[in-house]
Amino acid sequence: MTPERLAILDDAITRRQPDLTVLMDNVNKPRNVAAVIRTCDAVGISKVHCVYPHDRMSSFGGTAMGADRYVEKQLHDDALNAVSQLQAEGKQVLAAHLSDSAVDFRDIDYTKPTCIVLGQEKRGVPEATLAAVDQHIIIPMLGLTESLNVSVAAALILFEAQRQRMRAGMYTSGSKMSDEERRRLLFCWTQ
Amino acid sequence: MTPERLAILDDAITRRQPDLTVLMDNVNKPRNVAAVIRTCDAVGISKVHCVYPHDRMSSFGGTAMGADRYVEKQLHDDALNAVSQLQAEGKQVLAAHLSDSAVDFRDIDYTKPTCIVLGQEKRGVPEATLAAVDQHIIIPMLGLTESLNVSVAAALILFEAQRQRMRAGMYTSGSKMSDEERRRLLFCWTQ
Ligand SMILES: C[S@@+](CC[C@H](N)C(=O)[O-])C[C@H]1O[C@@H](n2cnc3c(N)ncnc32)[C@H](O)[C@@H]1O
Ligand SMILES: C[S@@+](CC[C@H](N)C(=O)[O-])C[C@H]1O[C@@H](n2cnc3c(N)ncnc32)[C@H](O)[C@@H]1O
Repeated sequence: MTPERLAILDDAITRRQPDLTVLMDNVNKPRNVAAVIRTCDAVGISKVHCVYPHDRMSSFGGTAMGADRYVEKQLHDDALNAVSQLQAEGKQVLAAHLSDSAVDFRDIDYTKPTCIVLGQEKRGVPEATLAAVDQHIIIPMLGLTESLNVSVAAALILFEAQRQRMRAGMYTSGSKMSDEERRRLLFCWTQ
Repeated sequence: MTPERLAILDDAITRRQPDLTVLMDNVNKPRNVAAVIRTCDAVGISKVHCVYPHDRMSSFGGTAMGADRYVEKQLHDDALNAVSQLQAEGKQVLAAHLSDSAVDFRDIDYTKPTCIVLGQEKRGVPEATLAAVDQHIIIPMLGLTESLNVSVAAALILFEAQRQRMRAGMYTSGSKMSDEERRRLLFCWTQ
């Protein structure tokens, strides 16, 4: 660990956005989970939430490119508990979902504390979760296929959040973490 | 083929953007090629260009979700010839590339005829191609990993193009294809 590397890690922590996250509700393919996590790192997300019936998180592919080292995963047995927890933290919980009542993803204010719920490759976000979240958001599609790859959908929404948060100065306004949390992360990342 | 299905196909053709495309320069993994093509369909791209030493296009994964049926693939042996061809068609050719001289991808006018060059998973866009294109564009990243998945990078750029073209009314201003091209596509899609 050189002083230069330490400075790079510390700067990345300063840009971390603890009030932005995703909840993957039974996203199945490890390569999709890995691609989402790689994107999360790029927009400054420090922790993601995953609902899994079993712990399958061990079987990551290579495509996270080391990002899984820098993004924490909190596992949940139950999506509804996870949604409640995130709402109790003051986050708006938005399900990425292809429905007629969904709002265009570009019309959302992502500078607010936000969690994006992503659904399973085949079946999408489960009904019960859809009923529990605050709003559904949709990425408008102009072709013939019905949906985007889940990691692509995640990236489009998260980079819209990144765009809004960059414009609002939220990556340059100093760390949003407590000193304790900051030191804990730095310790984890340098092990 | 019901009349309803025919109308859906015909509407999709009306939204097609023949002056927007991508050139995949040795993108290796079939699942990445498939994910890019699925996204291309969603933003109304009717034809993509692929540079391959050999024809590997046969080995698609399932993740194009049928999009490869609706998006034509033109194969090229040589990237430089492909870039010349696209420039001769009047397109600005932009390489998605992580370099210091690259322009932020959101500062580009994508309502102009445009081709986005995407590079290989490991090595990126080759030097010779980088020298031949009109400009390099970059997606700003705020974390610790060095690059995004190629299909994620493609989606972010293409949906920025979609956003600009939607705003400019380019999806609702009537077909940009000749009647002949329109009929040819409809014929292909209904076989
Ligand atoms: C492959 S899609 C699931 C498709 C599923 N058949 C459905 O209708 O929900 C996987 C996940 O990606 C997200 N997704 C894909 N395309 C989307 C779009 N255009 N708008 C919003 N979310 C999308 C959603 O979270 C979805 O649950
Ligand atoms: C995994 S990246 C290649 C990384 C390679 N080591 C490099 O430095 O070019 C594969 C392709 O995705 C695109 N890409 C990935 N992240 C990008 C970013 N942040 N900005 C622009 N293009 C990106 C580029 O076309 C790149 O060639």
